[in-house]
Amino acid sequence: MESVIVRMEEDVKLKNSVLIVGLPGIGNVGKITADFLIESLKAKKLADVFSQHLPPQVLMNEDAYARLVRNELYYKKRKEGDLIFFTGDFQGLTSQGQYEICYKVLELGKKLDVKQIITLGGYQIGKLMEIPRVLGAYTSREFRDEVEKLGVIFSKNEPGGGIVGGAGLFLGIGMELFELPGICLMGETSGYFTDPKSAKQVTKVLVDYLKLGTDTSGLDERIKEIEDITNRMIESPPQEERKEDLGYFG
Amino acid sequence: MESVIVRMEEDVKLKNSVLIVGLPGIGNVGKITADFLIESLKAKKLADVFSQHLPPQVLMNEDAYARLVRNELYYKKRKEGDLIFFTGDFQGLTSQGQYEICYKVLELGKKLDVKQIITLGGYQIGKLMEIPRVLGAYTSREFRDEVEKLGVIFSKNEPGGGIVGGAGLFLGIGMELFELPGICLMGETSGYFTDPKSAKQVTKVLVDYLKLGTDTSGLDERIKEIEDITNRMIESPPQEERKEDLGYFG
Amino acid sequence: MESVIVRMEEDVKLKNSVLIVGLPGIGNVGKITADFLIESLKAKKLADVFSQHLPPQVLMNEDAYARLVRNELYYKKRKEGDLIFFTGDFQGLTSQGQYEICYKVLELGKKLDVKQIITLGGYQIGKLMEIPRVLGAYTSREFRDEVEKLGVIFSKNEPGGGIVGGAGLFLGIGMELFELPGICLMGETSGYFTDPKSAKQVTKVLVDYLKLGTDTSGLDERIKEIEDITNRMIESPPQEERKEDLGYFG
Amino acid sequence: MESVIVRMEEDVKLKNSVLIVGLPGIGNVGKITADFLIESLKAKKLADVFSQHLPPQVLMNEDAYARLVRNELYYKKRKEGDLIFFTGDFQGLTSQGQYEICYKVLELGKKLDVKQIITLGGYQIGKLMEIPRVLGAYTSREFRDEVEKLGVIFSKNEPGGGIVGGAGLFLGIGMELFELPGICLMGETSGYFTDPKSAKQVTKVLVDYLKLGTDTSGLDERIKEIEDITNRMIESPPQEERKEDLGYFG
Repeated sequence: MESVIVRMEEDVKLKNSVLIVGLPGIGNVGKITADFLIESLKAKKLADVFSQHLPPQVLMNEDAYARLVRNELYYKKRKEGDLIFFTGDFQGLTSQGQYEICYKVLELGKKLDVKQIITLGGYQIGKLMEIPRVLGAYTSREFRDEVEKLGVIFSKNEPGGGIVGGAGLFLGIGMELFELPGICLMGETSGYFTDPKSAKQVTKVLVDYLKLGTDTSGLDERIKEIEDITNRMIESPPQEERKEDLGYFG
Repeated sequence: MESVIVRMEEDVKLKNSVLIVGLPGIGNVGKITADFLIESLKAKKLADVFSQHLPPQVLMNEDAYARLVRNELYYKKRKEGDLIFFTGDFQGLTSQGQYEICYKVLELGKKLDVKQIITLGGYQIGKLMEIPRVLGAYTSREFRDEVEKLGVIFSKNEPGGGIVGGAGLFLGIGMELFELPGICLMGETSGYFTDPKSAKQVTKVLVDYLKLGTDTSGLDERIKEIEDITNRMIESPPQEERKEDLGYFG
Repeated sequence: MESVIVRMEEDVKLKNSVLIVGLPGIGNVGKITADFLIESLKAKKLADVFSQHLPPQVLMNEDAYARLVRNELYYKKRKEGDLIFFTGDFQGLTSQGQYEICYKVLELGKKLDVKQIITLGGYQIGKLMEIPRVLGAYTSREFRDEVEKLGVIFSKNEPGGGIVGGAGLFLGIGMELFELPGICLMGETSGYFTDPKSAKQVTKVLVDYLKLGTDTSGLDERIKEIEDITNRMIESPPQEERKEDLGYFG
Repeated sequence: MESVIVRMEEDVKLKNSVLIVGLPGIGNVGKITADFLIESLKAKKLADVFSQHLPPQVLMNEDAYARLVRNELYYKKRKEGDLIFFTGDFQGLTSQGQYEICYKVLELGKKLDVKQIITLGGYQIGKLMEIPRVLGAYTSREFRDEVEKLGVIFSKNEPGGGIVGGAGLFLGIGMELFELPGICLMGETSGYFTDPKSAKQVTKVLVDYLKLGTDTSGLDERIKEIEDITNRMIESPPQEERKEDLGYFG
């Protein structure tokens, strides 16, 4: 079998597109942001991406319907330039797998007239923040200056760090092998649990930058849920796990 | 070498087939069920599947005859639709290997007019059950409703879980890449040892569903053996291992 | 690059050949035996086998000459049928690598008129033996009966075990994918150190079986060396490692 | 995607070239040496090497510019024979990856008229040395004798060791698969931190051997920096890590 299989849902012609990459990762910030915008903008399904670099696994919904794990592309037509979202259940399991999936998606992106890449992720700081900041990285000076005006921090003090996984790879491969410039937006996060609060800050920047006009208060309920859980954890630390009640599929 | 090699034993024409997948796994439930039905139905060998994704190993019988580890296909002709069984010594060692083997077998399945996939496995609950239940997952609403009538539980309460390995992958790849719908039947099992009692419950459902008319009491002897061992373990916990007597090949 | 590269040293025509496989492994029994016979019989170099499935490494001799790690083929012409030896510095690092190397060597073997495979290895029993026994496995009833007469034990009591690595794989792939029958000879060994004593017993069987007429006393010096070391270890158990004196290349 | 992608920066014709390999590794000796000479000699960029065998990652500079991790080739024209430097951010992550990258670079080297290979690395001795020695390995007797005159030690006492990674592999594959002879120069190093002092000794040998006339005192500042850090560590051992201040990208 081909190591990465793209199954197009629709044969659509896109123009002047921005590819927005939000995969699972630190604090799940990238994926929460992408999922929220896909829903808010009523973006349409463009393609499924299956790969032997993803886990050999199906996921079940509450009704026990089983779906093969996958990555997904969605699109939203706009006169200012179309949007393509790339998200999914998992990132590639190996380094090679991550390169393969990224390369294949960017090949498709070229055909869909992608002009700019925006990758989303979390920046782990190991503690809770009242208002998480959004940190940036870039491969295009022009895009950098635009988002800096929106409050994104391009730190000159931070010693040279790295961005691992899809948020880094789409930026790097996009620039070097496809001549597609871009930026990466990372929300500060403790990194200890899924972090919609951090995702909201990233979403706000993205909404401003792309002039989407989306109301981001739709994320507040999830923020509240997580805060309730973390508050409870702080008040009463977890007991020993009750293992007997835990069945799992394998 | 090709990464997966299918060596046909017979050039047989099958019609309206059901592919039943029972590989080694949790409690060995899937494999026990498949092996039992292959023997009971006197299913014939269809093909051997060798692969570099299986361990680099031979297994020996008591006479020291060495056979390369493999997966195997068997078939049984029936006027209600033919049966194909897929079982083996091991599952693929890596994620990629599991995808490759599954894909290759489904390619063959298409040629053998497979119309439906039934995967078998264990569902680990970490404790012994008097009468293990059979839990299901599905990719076809129609098949789901039929087996639900036979007592299979499609839980709406269970939070979205996953099925890892062949039992999940054949269901998922079958549906997404080969348009073959199916169901997965999982017997509850402690998961601590090979579990013919759980396999018997799965076998009963399968016999009912496929109207095989097979007497499943043939599994009772193995159930008795395992129960004797587990009862003894409960009465007298194991001493320190006597390592000196344990030779093994390597 | 090709994943396995065979570089022929000589374009020689062999007839009615026996392929003898002695790779590094448990107690190094297989490799000691193969190396000893290659030297005793003045076998000639036939080919080098390089592979990305071997470690990315050179080995140095005492003069600091560096040679890329490899596997090697040697041959010895005889009127009773030619001999081919396969040995090397390492076995493949991964399962896939072991399959690939084995398959490539057997492809070459077919061209060199191989009719029989004999693989050599150690059988770990975890304790020292006065006179290690030689245990066998087979894929040809005929060969089995012949070596059984020479004292090799084909145990009927041993529960079905496995032979992992080259000693098993050449036997299994040889039979299933190249229709080349064979036997495996395994010397009992503690498995704790390189074991020329066990190798001597395996060598004796091989010399008898192939009517080589080789004097095996050439192995006695190495046996004495190892016995001196193990005797000293039994008398005075090792002190803490003196790490400072240990430089190593990396 | 191709597993190793070489992107030429310049279409330059080189003659009678020496390929100098200095990759990250023990004490970073090889990379420090290569980087220092590239800068001192004002060597020009020849090519970027991207690969799925490198980490799926971008590195950021202080301005948050993100660049895909890579290996790099530089060249310097000279009438005594041209120089090609191979360095990079990482070595291949897997054995296969290291073989693939090495092979691809040597293929290019052949086209660029490479006649000799010099690999650079560290030789870990686990303690600090006042003046680290330079140890050698070789595949060409002629080159060995020349550098031995410059004080490089080709130890006859050292029991046969190995050189793992690029420093070994370029030597071994170069000789066996491309008929390119060479030497390896290894600076003694504790191996506990990046070691410019060891690199300086290696650089001196290389400058002498290739008659580069380069002043190596440019390395003294880095040596001083590292010595300050190690002296401080000896005087006051590290406290518990202050984790809260450590943000990292992931």
